[in-house]
Amino acid sequence: MKRRDFFKNSTLVAAGSLLAPLYGFSAGTDLAGSASGTAKNIIFLVSDGMSIGTLTLANLFAQRKFGKVTNWISLYEQQKAVRALMDTASADALVTDSAAASSAWGGGVRVNNGAINVGPDGTFHKPILQKFKDAGKAVGCVTSVPITHATPAGFCVNSDARSDQDGIALQYLDLRFDVMLGGGEEFFDGAKRKDKKDLFKAFKERGYSVLRNRKELQAQDSKETRPVLGVFYEDGLPYALDRNSSSELTAQTPSLAEMTKTAIQLMDGKKNGFVLQVEGGKVDWAAHANDAGALISDQLAFDEAVGVAVEFANRDKNTLVIITTDHGNANPGLFSAEGDVNANFDRFMSFKQTNEWVLKGITKNDSPVQVIDRIEAAQKLVFTKAQATEILSHYLKLDDTGLYNPKKLPFKLYGELQSKHTSVSFGSMNHSADFVELAMLGPGSEQLKPFIKNTDLHNLMLKATGVMK
Amino acid sequence: MKRRDFFKNSTLVAAGSLLAPLYGFSAGTDLAGSASGTAKNIIFLVSDGMSIGTLTLANLFAQRKFGKVTNWISLYEQQKAVRALMDTASADALVTDSAAASSAWGGGVRVNNGAINVGPDGTFHKPILQKFKDAGKAVGCVTSVPITHATPAGFCVNSDARSDQDGIALQYLDLRFDVMLGGGEEFFDGAKRKDKKDLFKAFKERGYSVLRNRKELQAQDSKETRPVLGVFYEDGLPYALDRNSSSELTAQTPSLAEMTKTAIQLMDGKKNGFVLQVEGGKVDWAAHANDAGALISDQLAFDEAVGVAVEFANRDKNTLVIITTDHGNANPGLFSAEGDVNANFDRFMSFKQTNEWVLKGITKNDSPVQVIDRIEAAQKLVFTKAQATEILSHYLKLDDTGLYNPKKLPFKLYGELQSKHTSVSFGSMNHSADFVELAMLGPGSEQLKPFIKNTDLHNLMLKATGVMK
Repeated sequence: MKRRDFFKNSTLVAAGSLLAPLYGFSAGTDLAGSASGTAKNIIFLVSDGMSIGTLTLANLFAQRKFGKVTNWISLYEQQKAVRALMDTASADALVTDSAAASSAWGGGVRVNNGAINVGPDGTFHKPILQKFKDAGKAVGCVTSVPITHATPAGFCVNSDARSDQDGIALQYLDLRFDVMLGGGEEFFDGAKRKDKKDLFKAFKERGYSVLRNRKELQAQDSKETRPVLGVFYEDGLPYALDRNSSSELTAQTPSLAEMTKTAIQLMDGKKNGFVLQVEGGKVDWAAHANDAGALISDQLAFDEAVGVAVEFANRDKNTLVIITTDHGNANPGLFSAEGDVNANFDRFMSFKQTNEWVLKGITKNDSPVQVIDRIEAAQKLVFTKAQATEILSHYLKLDDTGLYNPKKLPFKLYGELQSKHTSVSFGSMNHSADFVELAMLGPGSEQLKPFIKNTDLHNLMLKATGVMK
Repeated sequence: MKRRDFFKNSTLVAAGSLLAPLYGFSAGTDLAGSASGTAKNIIFLVSDGMSIGTLTLANLFAQRKFGKVTNWISLYEQQKAVRALMDTASADALVTDSAAASSAWGGGVRVNNGAINVGPDGTFHKPILQKFKDAGKAVGCVTSVPITHATPAGFCVNSDARSDQDGIALQYLDLRFDVMLGGGEEFFDGAKRKDKKDLFKAFKERGYSVLRNRKELQAQDSKETRPVLGVFYEDGLPYALDRNSSSELTAQTPSLAEMTKTAIQLMDGKKNGFVLQVEGGKVDWAAHANDAGALISDQLAFDEAVGVAVEFANRDKNTLVIITTDHGNANPGLFSAEGDVNANFDRFMSFKQTNEWVLKGITKNDSPVQVIDRIEAAQKLVFTKAQATEILSHYLKLDDTGLYNPKKLPFKLYGELQSKHTSVSFGSMNHSADFVELAMLGPGSEQLKPFIKNTDLHNLMLKATGVMK
């Protein structure tokens, strides 16, 4: 079977489905290839900001709605992966941000929060995708947030400040990595960049294939020899839950699994192999917003991408697959409560929209009844008039600051009110220091120890591929 | 070296120390004996209600205060244990209580929350320590909560209701298990039992050695042939943090590690081996109370007991050690915050008392200044007058109900106010559905799969010992 055909007979996700198809691993077959030896390819999948509660909730949801465990948990049940617990701290804090976390993997050295592969003393640590490119491999990143965001950037560039996404986009232009797919239109669009440069035009002029919507992604020739830049949305891509409920969003934006599939197709067959980072970036954003419906659906969208990667690795036999997160976030849980916790949890099955969708559509001129109706239509939850009034009161004090919460919508209040219906609640709206889950399969995975620091993965990847002896 | 001498040269915990000595494992030596073959003994250690955040916080604290990782994490660093993720659900809920959770291990079948080894249809499932006793092994339990509480009871008895601790104490009288050590005086004391029976007298009359304080425990002859009952306190034993700050409590109550040590000494050398359950029960109580100082110190007290068990297993070579929890609780985390999260976390190093100690000593007649002074003396935290007033306001509405919160003290409020100083907060005051951490070492551990249900451990223990073929 030719490499490029590997998806031909697969059951890859229909658009609109929340959950990955669950690949029928047969026990006893070494589907991901030898656990020892040299990896030709690496697929590194990051569910950004995934506390263990997030992994659990997604799996419980999949079991109850679809009768099947997630691809991630299936790897464990089938004994197809090795596991580790990972310490995620940064150079200056027990609780990392995504920039320092990705730098730990990408540069092999802990840096301060906010920095990308630049040490506290100003030292530049060479990003791992540059090392792999120098070694002749195809390299790329896929994400559901801006492609210039901290997690992909940590594999690609050096930057004093993660916030300089304009500058990171410019660095990408020179790097000429093979595949970069995600959101972040505002860092490429001349009308939106501070320097007014039209980077879409610049990328085309430099010989890139530039993709702007899902149709163009689907039409992309997998035999493409030019580097490919795909930027499908302003800011992050829509949450999977909102996307799957909207034909417009589904036409505009691909799923994480679709981007992952295309990225693999574009890089597979390159003589020296490839290294791909895949980030479920909106899992982190959902946790910051205490938006449990968004969290579960985006974790499942990430799990679809896990399915794509594992299916490829099973056929390829030369691919190291790493599945993890960069840090916990908000430590969600399904908690015991008055009443039937199972029935409460099952309310998520009726969700059509995220909390963000609900809150973004409310205006200060709405009546409490309009708010109640909106919530019931979106999530089949019945709020009281007092609750609706409390939500509305927050719309009188909006401004325009905040990293993940640009309009200061009442996410915290809404999450608290919602938790009375769903029994899912959160400990914070920020990252946590929790040790996190990591799974690995394929050649090189035999190097994994049961407890690691995030930085350990840098050399592990270089050694697994033979780039470092 | 004779078995009974195994602690002679050990560096076992000085009273008053929070942290276990960290046994100097030398890499490359198979200290816990063969990973395959038959186990003669089992030590099953449960940190009750331990979310992954609890394990993380205790380890971070140990690293920052003592410069060493916990015994639990050390096992991973030294590659001395295998790990699994465990699904903890009960028969009727995604979120288990401790009775159903211990029954899953103890009886091998999921039962409804509240029941102990009694199925939804009334079926009695034989508790595992009864099976092991029938097989000729010495059996026992050690806990920091009442010895009649759900987790030890789940290994010992059948009961429709975990709340019937009077009845469970009576069942223990007939079972004649070798060692039962913990709290729960009120279920043995004739003045406090509903039926007015003096069970301490009854146990003595039936030939038990009955121990009532730490000194008696220390004086207990390890060559004892009678069964041993030790009940050291009313209700749960004091939190480790409060105990270690009080000479009176230290004289009255042993640490979990000390009880574990004595239990092993009493049962080691029995011809057919022994099976011991050790529960850090107050970890769960601290999580229910969102009492972060209590949580960290009791998790470390549990870790001391882990150290005792592992040291024994390393010398014995025939012991399967299982280290886990029955469910998450409250999902605590150290969360990123304004200011220096590391400095905030380090405030726990100055804690002398738990939140429970602080709140139990406040009366409604206190002034805000008295409250502020009490908090500063106990935890070196400076609360505002407004905060002290808010705390005091709760003392006007106290009553006498609630399972873990008998006086309805303002634990939640206090935890929230405290979190502004420490950056540790909680998602709930209840159990969570989170998949949980499990470690295993010694003969039988080769049977462990990477993802298990709680019930899987029942047969694993029976097979590891050869009691089940």
